[in-house]
Amino acid sequence: MPASVLITCGNVVGRLWLHFSAVYIITGITCYLLYHEYKYISCKRLEYFMTSKPLPQHFTVLVRAIPVSDGVAVSDAVDKFFREYHSSTYLSHTVVHQTGKLRRLLNDAENICTKLTNLKYVHRSSQDAPRKFLGLFGRNDVLGKYQKRLEDVEENVRLEQSDATRRQEIPAAFVSFRSRYGAANAIYIRQSDNPTEWQTEHAPDPHDVYWPFFSTSFMERWIAKFVVFVASVLLILVFLLVVAFVQGLTYLEQVEKWLPFLRKILEIAVVSQLVTGYLPSVILHVLSSYVPSIMKLFSTMQGFISVSGIERSACNKMLRFTIWTVFFANVLTGSVLVQVEIFLNPKEIPSKLAVLVPAQASFFIAYVVTSWTSITSELTQTAALFCHLWGKCAKCCRRDTSEAPSMPYHSEIPRILLFGLLGFTYFIVAPLILPFVLVYFCLGYFIFRNQLFNVYAPKYDTGGKFWPIVHNTTIFSLVVLHIIAIGVFGLKKLPLASSLLLPLPVLTLLFNEFCRNRFVPIFEAYSTESLIKKDREEQSKPEMLEFFSNLVTAYRDPALKPIRRASNSDERTAPLLASSPI
Amino acid sequence: MPASVLITCGNVVGRLWLHFSAVYIITGITCYLLYHEYKYISCKRLEYFMTSKPLPQHFTVLVRAIPVSDGVAVSDAVDKFFREYHSSTYLSHTVVHQTGKLRRLLNDAENICTKLTNLKYVHRSSQDAPRKFLGLFGRNDVLGKYQKRLEDVEENVRLEQSDATRRQEIPAAFVSFRSRYGAANAIYIRQSDNPTEWQTEHAPDPHDVYWPFFSTSFMERWIAKFVVFVASVLLILVFLLVVAFVQGLTYLEQVEKWLPFLRKILEIAVVSQLVTGYLPSVILHVLSSYVPSIMKLFSTMQGFISVSGIERSACNKMLRFTIWTVFFANVLTGSVLVQVEIFLNPKEIPSKLAVLVPAQASFFIAYVVTSWTSITSELTQTAALFCHLWGKCAKCCRRDTSEAPSMPYHSEIPRILLFGLLGFTYFIVAPLILPFVLVYFCLGYFIFRNQLFNVYAPKYDTGGKFWPIVHNTTIFSLVVLHIIAIGVFGLKKLPLASSLLLPLPVLTLLFNEFCRNRFVPIFEAYSTESLIKKDREEQSKPEMLEFFSNLVTAYRDPALKPIRRASNSDERTAPLLASSPI
Repeated sequence: MPASVLITCGNVVGRLWLHFSAVYIITGITCYLLYHEYKYISCKRLEYFMTSKPLPQHFTVLVRAIPVSDGVAVSDAVDKFFREYHSSTYLSHTVVHQTGKLRRLLNDAENICTKLTNLKYVHRSSQDAPRKFLGLFGRNDVLGKYQKRLEDVEENVRLEQSDATRRQEIPAAFVSFRSRYGAANAIYIRQSDNPTEWQTEHAPDPHDVYWPFFSTSFMERWIAKFVVFVASVLLILVFLLVVAFVQGLTYLEQVEKWLPFLRKILEIAVVSQLVTGYLPSVILHVLSSYVPSIMKLFSTMQGFISVSGIERSACNKMLRFTIWTVFFANVLTGSVLVQVEIFLNPKEIPSKLAVLVPAQASFFIAYVVTSWTSITSELTQTAALFCHLWGKCAKCCRRDTSEAPSMPYHSEIPRILLFGLLGFTYFIVAPLILPFVLVYFCLGYFIFRNQLFNVYAPKYDTGGKFWPIVHNTTIFSLVVLHIIAIGVFGLKKLPLASSLLLPLPVLTLLFNEFCRNRFVPIFEAYSTESLIKKDREEQSKPEMLEFFSNLVTAYRDPALKPIRRASNSDERTAPLLASSPI
Repeated sequence: MPASVLITCGNVVGRLWLHFSAVYIITGITCYLLYHEYKYISCKRLEYFMTSKPLPQHFTVLVRAIPVSDGVAVSDAVDKFFREYHSSTYLSHTVVHQTGKLRRLLNDAENICTKLTNLKYVHRSSQDAPRKFLGLFGRNDVLGKYQKRLEDVEENVRLEQSDATRRQEIPAAFVSFRSRYGAANAIYIRQSDNPTEWQTEHAPDPHDVYWPFFSTSFMERWIAKFVVFVASVLLILVFLLVVAFVQGLTYLEQVEKWLPFLRKILEIAVVSQLVTGYLPSVILHVLSSYVPSIMKLFSTMQGFISVSGIERSACNKMLRFTIWTVFFANVLTGSVLVQVEIFLNPKEIPSKLAVLVPAQASFFIAYVVTSWTSITSELTQTAALFCHLWGKCAKCCRRDTSEAPSMPYHSEIPRILLFGLLGFTYFIVAPLILPFVLVYFCLGYFIFRNQLFNVYAPKYDTGGKFWPIVHNTTIFSLVVLHIIAIGVFGLKKLPLASSLLLPLPVLTLLFNEFCRNRFVPIFEAYSTESLIKKDREEQSKPEMLEFFSNLVTAYRDPALKPIRRASNSDERTAPLLASSPI
């Protein structure tokens, strides 16, 4: 063997060992950063709790699966139970009602109201001279007709609200206590001898409660959980099939074979370019824009009762969805069955990934670069702008009463974490992707920072409860990196490096387990220490009396609050329908 | 094809469909029985709690990982913490001390004491005429020598006990409360902001505490858990290697190849028969008789602090050990690597098991039949008798002061559950085994019933906490049955039956999940309902005052209790050394 080949060989091996140590170093640094970030965020969370003013959700517990014997009202059952077992701390309770019909009526009223306001606005802006709007209808009595309908609906709403017997009680209630520690007692110690009855959990912020869907019985929720799991797996499978079909569209011959009657049209150059070039990505984008809402619907069905809980659960589902349909579906090109096959053969995974992942490097670099556009479009809010314009045209100059939007965490977090996964998995096989990912993260940092401060209005505050999702995904990405590295060293005939890497995923998972023990409890519950300190601090404050009197009605279904017509003084700015303050 | 062949074919297929429905029926019946048994046992458990007299363990909490700053005693830290956060229910605490040296001294004292008693007994039974015992030593001054040594050791014990500064405090304490609900509060609500500090758990019965090994810090226990997991996997692997080696002994040529210098001896017929026939099974029996104690040692290292906890954890470990080394090692004959290989290829498992399991049917029938002997030897307690006789000969007629033994649950339960596994797995491929298993269970029922009532003295009472182990193992056996059945129908070219069986393991696991939700919480904690009812019941009873005053000292390390010499009135029956009553 000539000397130069030997030297090259030595160089290659040397470079591989450099890669080997790089994997250890990057894992070490990541774990160090993850630990400190977890620590920092949990400290922030504790600080947030200790400095917060009294919040209803800290004093309240949601009780579900309340066992009711015939002839006893849910309300009486709850009162009796908590007066007996929590006599010293029990304050009040609010039973949840089925308010589906009422909610529909209120929606109707609001719609009519908006139309009425818009009409009045148009009417007035045309200087009291009625004109035919869009040349179709503009007669003066339209106003009177809407007014009449609004009064009818409002009458119905009042009837429905006042007639308690017509509403069905749901065996669930918000129970409030005199102290945070009292509420914690009711949550963490099982209430009933039968674990499927009197199930308690943290109550969400009153504004965060998702009222329309309130499934309650233990069995119902348990079955729903299983059904949703199956449904979300099916959704991934169906989506993978759709992706395979759509990718077929990029080949003109394929399209002509599927749809022979279109052959004539497809022969026009512009049409064929549109079909093969734009149509697939448009279909995919449209379809994938519906996925977050479907995932949110699934989470709703699972029995989460707060918007934040639903979005957190939807975030987890979206994460799995994104990782499968974007990362694995592109890496393991081929049918669903082929993809599943690989995971049924765990011994082969590292070597297969080591071959398949680098092959897609250029695709993912392009993916990252095109994502720069999507993240900058976040800044311009193009989609929202188009929606707004469309709404304006279609709904006859309706006044824009929409509130500031809230950040869609469940669709944004998985997208950002996907780039973390890409960065880690390509760290060893195609480091060229790293600067592009870095640019994405830098752009993302500045853009989202701006959006969070200036554009989005927070709808709820979880106190950092989304962080564990980020932590877990990063650990997952690290383990995928290790598996790929093991495969790469195996392929490059460096079995020693391959075996020396084996402890790394184990150590990473142990580190994760340690973090789970050390930090996760902080995100699940506050400690006796904090709760009692906070309770004592406020014990003697005079404003607590007012807080408690507000707490009694804090968890009333907004649909049951009396509707109130705004004063006639300034109809142009005041909404016609408004809930009375608590 | 002749008609007769067609009819036979039809018959075979018909019989296979009979087997198919049998799998569904047996699963249904088993799940029904499991559900009702779980329900029955959890009811019994609640009943046991509600009818029990006040027990120290219900009012006490074990606190570990107590953070101590320099110069502050653990005792002061505990007192300060619980007075601050549990002022209304806190009663007292007992800090745990390192008493290893003291324990050794006490052991010495007890040994000398026993020797002394025996000598006195011999002395007296030989009618005041000293004789040389066993012709070696029997001089009168031996008595005096022992008396002197006993006094020295007792003096040392007293010194060690009185000098508190010489003992090191362990950052762990038993904290007692005035009510069961107060104790539950301290257990189920995290105490400290840092989840790795002030960790609380149920205190065991004072007689059930395992004092010698009291590991405390969070990290220590966490690492120990991982190390023990690795060690118990290694133990299984090592044992499998040993079994392979020992099975090699059954082939004379193999032995001659391994140990060529023994060829001469092995040519003698008796020796060769002994070596090939008895030696392997003797070695295996001796080795496996040590495994339960090793597993117990592992569980001790994991940081369990009650004998019952240690035995429950050891029971789980023994179960895994038994299933691997007896069931899988015999079914998947071949090296460890070959066995692991099968499980790395999950798609092939059903068909492989469907081939391999029936092949070992006759071996397991023989295994069940030979186990009849082992279970009847339980009745005669042959091993204990031999031990006793050996002890009598070796330890110069020592007086038999041993207490009634306790049931070794951790070695007996896994053995019995193994037969359940055999019954289920062979239910479809070799139903001939069923009557033998049935005879085993019938024998076992009567023998263990007798032993539990008349022979063994219970050492602790867990309130049915061993049942979940039995439930889970039965579910595991059912799933193995399903996998084998799927494999069998696949082999017999009935893919429809095979696919129709696929929902069965899923349904079984769902059933298990339901049971876990429905019953396991009952075995982990008592509910607010029960705790408060029980507390109220006893609130006004006068005997509670005495109970509380006893509770203060209930968790004192027995090594720290003053030693007390029994009165000289009847030395033949009273033990010389006795702990003072609480």
